[in-house]
Amino acid sequence: MALLTGSLPRIPLPQPSGAGGRFKEPPSVVALGGGHGLSASLAALRLLTSELTAVVTVADDGGSSGRLRRELGVLPPGDLRMALAALCDDTEWGRTWRDVMQHRFKSAEPTEASLDNHALGNLLIVTLWELLGNPVAGLQWAGALLGARGQVLPMATVPLTIEGDVFTETADGRLRTETITGQSKLAAAGKNCRVHDIRLIPADAPACGEALEAIELSDWVILGPGSWYTSVLPHLMLPQLREALCRTTARRVLTMNLATDTKETSGMTAADHLDVVRRYAPEMRFDFVLADPGAVEDRDRFRQAAAALGARVVFGRVGTLGGAPVHDPLRLAAAYHDIFGGNEEHADA
Amino acid sequence: MALLTGSLPRIPLPQPSGAGGRFKEPPSVVALGGGHGLSASLAALRLLTSELTAVVTVADDGGSSGRLRRELGVLPPGDLRMALAALCDDTEWGRTWRDVMQHRFKSAEPTEASLDNHALGNLLIVTLWELLGNPVAGLQWAGALLGARGQVLPMATVPLTIEGDVFTETADGRLRTETITGQSKLAAAGKNCRVHDIRLIPADAPACGEALEAIELSDWVILGPGSWYTSVLPHLMLPQLREALCRTTARRVLTMNLATDTKETSGMTAADHLDVVRRYAPEMRFDFVLADPGAVEDRDRFRQAAAALGARVVFGRVGTLGGAPVHDPLRLAAAYHDIFGGNEEHADA
Repeated sequence: MALLTGSLPRIPLPQPSGAGGRFKEPPSVVALGGGHGLSASLAALRLLTSELTAVVTVADDGGSSGRLRRELGVLPPGDLRMALAALCDDTEWGRTWRDVMQHRFKSAEPTEASLDNHALGNLLIVTLWELLGNPVAGLQWAGALLGARGQVLPMATVPLTIEGDVFTETADGRLRTETITGQSKLAAAGKNCRVHDIRLIPADAPACGEALEAIELSDWVILGPGSWYTSVLPHLMLPQLREALCRTTARRVLTMNLATDTKETSGMTAADHLDVVRRYAPEMRFDFVLADPGAVEDRDRFRQAAAALGARVVFGRVGTLGGAPVHDPLRLAAAYHDIFGGNEEHADA
Repeated sequence: MALLTGSLPRIPLPQPSGAGGRFKEPPSVVALGGGHGLSASLAALRLLTSELTAVVTVADDGGSSGRLRRELGVLPPGDLRMALAALCDDTEWGRTWRDVMQHRFKSAEPTEASLDNHALGNLLIVTLWELLGNPVAGLQWAGALLGARGQVLPMATVPLTIEGDVFTETADGRLRTETITGQSKLAAAGKNCRVHDIRLIPADAPACGEALEAIELSDWVILGPGSWYTSVLPHLMLPQLREALCRTTARRVLTMNLATDTKETSGMTAADHLDVVRRYAPEMRFDFVLADPGAVEDRDRFRQAAAALGARVVFGRVGTLGGAPVHDPLRLAAAYHDIFGGNEEHADA
């Protein structure tokens, strides 16, 4: 989380072009995703607005979150905790409580290592849930502790399980179909696997009402970046959430990953990523697809795939300078700034 | 902790009697103890002053604290957490974070019950210690979260172990001497045991510097109530702490328990409790011994034992109305109020 520790400047938004600009200032923005991708998105968007809502996947079943989910029957808190941490107030108070939330216990004696690898923030969030009996209220209290800029909501009010059918290459070179259950296993499926279908269990889980409302009332909705099958697509697969995303009058931005050929998406191009979105949410339209030019092999094919989603492509150099496939908050903020202000052609490379 | 949830009134202190009253207003008070006894003491004293320092035993080796101490090599946080909880700000904010700190995890599935019975506040305090590398700074941050009225300090900067020699009655009625190591075992030693000697390990542990300073600068020092051998006497057994208690110009109050014949002190009268204090800290003098008249069998013998400590006895009905051996915060506050104001004869029953 080193990216978030600096005192990044707030970027003043440009005035709406002409009279009667469409958006109020600051714009209200809903960012959907999970994990590190959503953290990057929030680290950028917090520089542009305080009217910010994070809608977060609740399908994690690995590590500290998975253990809490199984042990206490709660939503997996880890992705929610990371989103809160990304929104912490940029003061000694906010940064200290963020560090407390992100702290993980490392036991000297693994034999009694019951706490090993639990993030304190996960335990804190679960405690608030148990005390208050309400996931949204618990996250509001955790946000208040951090002085969070914006609110963090779960996408659904029950824990979700992601199940995927994958092609696995066998030793003799043939393809075998296999079903993998659980986000943690699916995300780690590896080079020899390729996801060809994915499902949420339960398929019709109730979406978080406050998330639906935020989407309805927002000016901008941002989906991605993030693990495509396990952090991005789930938002389009939950029926109530997909309907809200289709219905809202907000402008919609789909932000691509910097690395396309990952364990989860082995062999896929950037355009393939867009095709998968269209397959799972054929009725969904986007206004913009934001991509780093270095992550797109074939621009024409990519533009075609974006057009099939109703979107125009905005290219912007949004990765960190070092070349690691990590979004730079300031560059990503600058790209959103141009898009929000109607100056997206400035970002086009 | 139900006693602490109400909106108890603040009691205005009487004006110092005559010109040049000895104590500034509010008086600065140091309360020493551990466990529920110290919580009761703090719940009373917070009504009288915000210049309040709790100095807390760090010898617990049972339950959540014991596991953290063994697993992570830290001070046992439980008694410190309880003291912080007793000082929380009396607002929705303070009470909510107090409830979060006091919350214990109960697993549905004991097989994976790694968190079972850990208090979240213990984990939060340990996290602050690991992040900040300083027990006092960590407790200050936890206190700031709660809006604590006053500060909480450990008596020593290293975990302590209490070892006791006890007489055990054998099946054939003879007395056998046995050594019991650890506060949790000692506190539960039971009716057939009687402590006849007790030691701290290490015997010369460094006291907390901030605690020594608070004792030196305070107007009043209050020792007890609390488990006599495991929460009260340890403060007199740590050399640096005993010296500070002897040296301070503060007035010293020893507050007796409501139940004298407990598992830890089976067969002992209230006067026996005072004799034990004199045995472990013969050079220590008290100004007042505060006792509930219902907990003292032989008043003359009790006054003699108090006089041997240099103290006069103040009797006050300080237990709860129901008759359970629990101090009532408001009654205890009223008794201290009279003592601090020089009107202790009003409390005498």
